[in-house]
Amino acid sequence: MPALPALERGVSVTAAKGFVAGGVHAGIRHSKPDLAIVRSTEPAVGAAMWSKNRVQAACLLVNREHLSLAEPQAVVINSGVANSATGERGKLDAIATAAEAGRLLDLDAEQVLVLSTGVIGVPLPMAKLLPGLRVATQALGPDGGTDAATAIMTTDTKPKQAVAAGSSFTVGGMAKGSGMIHPNLATMLAVVTTDYPLEPGEAIEFLRPAVDESFNAISIDGDCSTNDAVILLANGAAGIERTPASDLSFAACLRKVCSDLSEQIVADGEGVTVLAEIAVTGAADDRQAKAIAQRIATSALVKTALFGRDANWGRVLMAAGSAPFNGGYADVDIDLVTLSYNGSVVLERGAPLGVEPDVSGATCEIRLDLGLGSGAASYLTSDLSYDYVRINADYRT
Amino acid sequence: MPALPALERGVSVTAAKGFVAGGVHAGIRHSKPDLAIVRSTEPAVGAAMWSKNRVQAACLLVNREHLSLAEPQAVVINSGVANSATGERGKLDAIATAAEAGRLLDLDAEQVLVLSTGVIGVPLPMAKLLPGLRVATQALGPDGGTDAATAIMTTDTKPKQAVAAGSSFTVGGMAKGSGMIHPNLATMLAVVTTDYPLEPGEAIEFLRPAVDESFNAISIDGDCSTNDAVILLANGAAGIERTPASDLSFAACLRKVCSDLSEQIVADGEGVTVLAEIAVTGAADDRQAKAIAQRIATSALVKTALFGRDANWGRVLMAAGSAPFNGGYADVDIDLVTLSYNGSVVLERGAPLGVEPDVSGATCEIRLDLGLGSGAASYLTSDLSYDYVRINADYRT
Repeated sequence: MPALPALERGVSVTAAKGFVAGGVHAGIRHSKPDLAIVRSTEPAVGAAMWSKNRVQAACLLVNREHLSLAEPQAVVINSGVANSATGERGKLDAIATAAEAGRLLDLDAEQVLVLSTGVIGVPLPMAKLLPGLRVATQALGPDGGTDAATAIMTTDTKPKQAVAAGSSFTVGGMAKGSGMIHPNLATMLAVVTTDYPLEPGEAIEFLRPAVDESFNAISIDGDCSTNDAVILLANGAAGIERTPASDLSFAACLRKVCSDLSEQIVADGEGVTVLAEIAVTGAADDRQAKAIAQRIATSALVKTALFGRDANWGRVLMAAGSAPFNGGYADVDIDLVTLSYNGSVVLERGAPLGVEPDVSGATCEIRLDLGLGSGAASYLTSDLSYDYVRINADYRT
Repeated sequence: MPALPALERGVSVTAAKGFVAGGVHAGIRHSKPDLAIVRSTEPAVGAAMWSKNRVQAACLLVNREHLSLAEPQAVVINSGVANSATGERGKLDAIATAAEAGRLLDLDAEQVLVLSTGVIGVPLPMAKLLPGLRVATQALGPDGGTDAATAIMTTDTKPKQAVAAGSSFTVGGMAKGSGMIHPNLATMLAVVTTDYPLEPGEAIEFLRPAVDESFNAISIDGDCSTNDAVILLANGAAGIERTPASDLSFAACLRKVCSDLSEQIVADGEGVTVLAEIAVTGAADDRQAKAIAQRIATSALVKTALFGRDANWGRVLMAAGSAPFNGGYADVDIDLVTLSYNGSVVLERGAPLGVEPDVSGATCEIRLDLGLGSGAASYLTSDLSYDYVRINADYRT
């Protein structure tokens, strides 16, 4: 891994050569910036990963179509309204947004991807959004990264940006929070840009593994929203020759940016007082390990115990034993299970040791070894606090 | 369905002829009653349904063995310690408990079932439990139902008992709460007794459907504990001749008792301010309907919205679209979905109607029609309140 260069985080999606961005107030929300554009000034290739929720926001349906027709050159993102559960009108609004942005940016509509985050079931205010696109286009520039990262925020308390650089290329990104972390709107969005050269069709091969071990390992209440999306644009503006070594370096930088943004999402959760890593080893296989880690990481009983600084480890076992997998539960043999908190073993091959571990800190590492095989997975999660309830109960009211 | 007779609830598990019960303080817990016995004074047949958690409490492992060897005549239940994650010692303790109870009750050890509820990972205090069994045996009587129902309580605020009677037989039961409802100990236990005559092997045929539509439709945070159990004992002491009509009446009474106990469990949850029924129709099949109903009923986002008296119905759609099923998600086509709160339709075949339903009451009915098929299921759930967090964070500390 190359060391992080002395780039300001504030320039995130515009850290790589050949990218401009901007964020403005279009009036979709009352006062805060609500409309962002990220654009490659060079021909780019791209890829995206979408929410697997069976209810898909209108913009995601349109984006899938666009990606099948053209390489993406720009991304438009609004906050305030999710354009989800908006019927046929929602799809037409997303298409119109891409078309107008394309016209302003001198791109085909199919070269523009559209993301939305906000309240579900409310139509996009097109009378505000379309004029806003013109303002956002005029605001585009190499210094616009932080404005863009700010415009996509919902309940986030700060913009999330990250940069990693190889010897002669750069990867930058921005994100907003999701789920348990930013529970009100529950949507996780990220845009990552790079000047590393990729061929058409290649971007997804790099993006998928990076997302699987970052954004896909922090979903906290088990929800994926109707709008979740991660988009990668690569324009080759670094002008370098690729080698197998540079590919590895690029993959590492991409993982670094995705992981950094993921950690910022978890850490920024209002109401979060503890960050916990759930590390599962010894599962029958990696998929079962992931199912078990996710079940523990999303258990309300485990998360409230974390909030109470209580190593109530029976709850971890209960969650581990009821991890949905292939229509049943993932394999657990309690007689083989070893469990530790912050390095203190509380249960060794099924036998409790009478140890009371120290879980008073702001971070907690819970390691569960199932003793069955070589499957491993880890999840980053948070506690469930009074503030989580307050934020979610008060939203909209 | 026969009308409920004028029987006192307080006599629950001893309402049917030929049953005695008792509850005493054995010293497992600091001061409250902690040991109960329910016994049939006539030869009985029985059946049980156990937690599907892959981590099974020692007593459940022993009970499975006992049920395979003999018809159950008595049930011993302690609160305070769950005898779960206690290794080989836990199994020996459960066997010793059944053996000593059998000796005192003049039964084979295999005719005794043992249930425990309480902290996981702590061994049963046998030096207190075994002498306690003698005291509990001496306390057995036809008026001991409420004492037994009290002794099995953990964070329950009141004993849970129910009775239903046919023309010439009676079904009675007791239960304690679970999961999100009684989150501290997270175990749901129920014992149901009847003087209706059943043949060996028949009891499970009546018990399974009754449990599926009652106790199995209230699991709130998706957890089933390592100790959950429902036991049915039937001793035929009513001395009646069975007919197809009496079988139907018995099945109805059994459902009634199970449903009544389930509702008491949900209603008694500390921190519960709203009871909500999630009714899913039009799913591809019943299994998918159940997966979707459960996903909605256990969503922290849906439950905090209920606490806030906010019909934030996008959260219901998000949960519905991400209901785990067969390794993926259950089928949802948003364009076919109709959703209502308390009779007010907010979304009709995918189109939002701009309606703001009244969800200010202490109950809420959420109806989701998927428009795909004839699958249906419903779940009873509660809101997620500050008190839920307080109870769970403070436990043990």
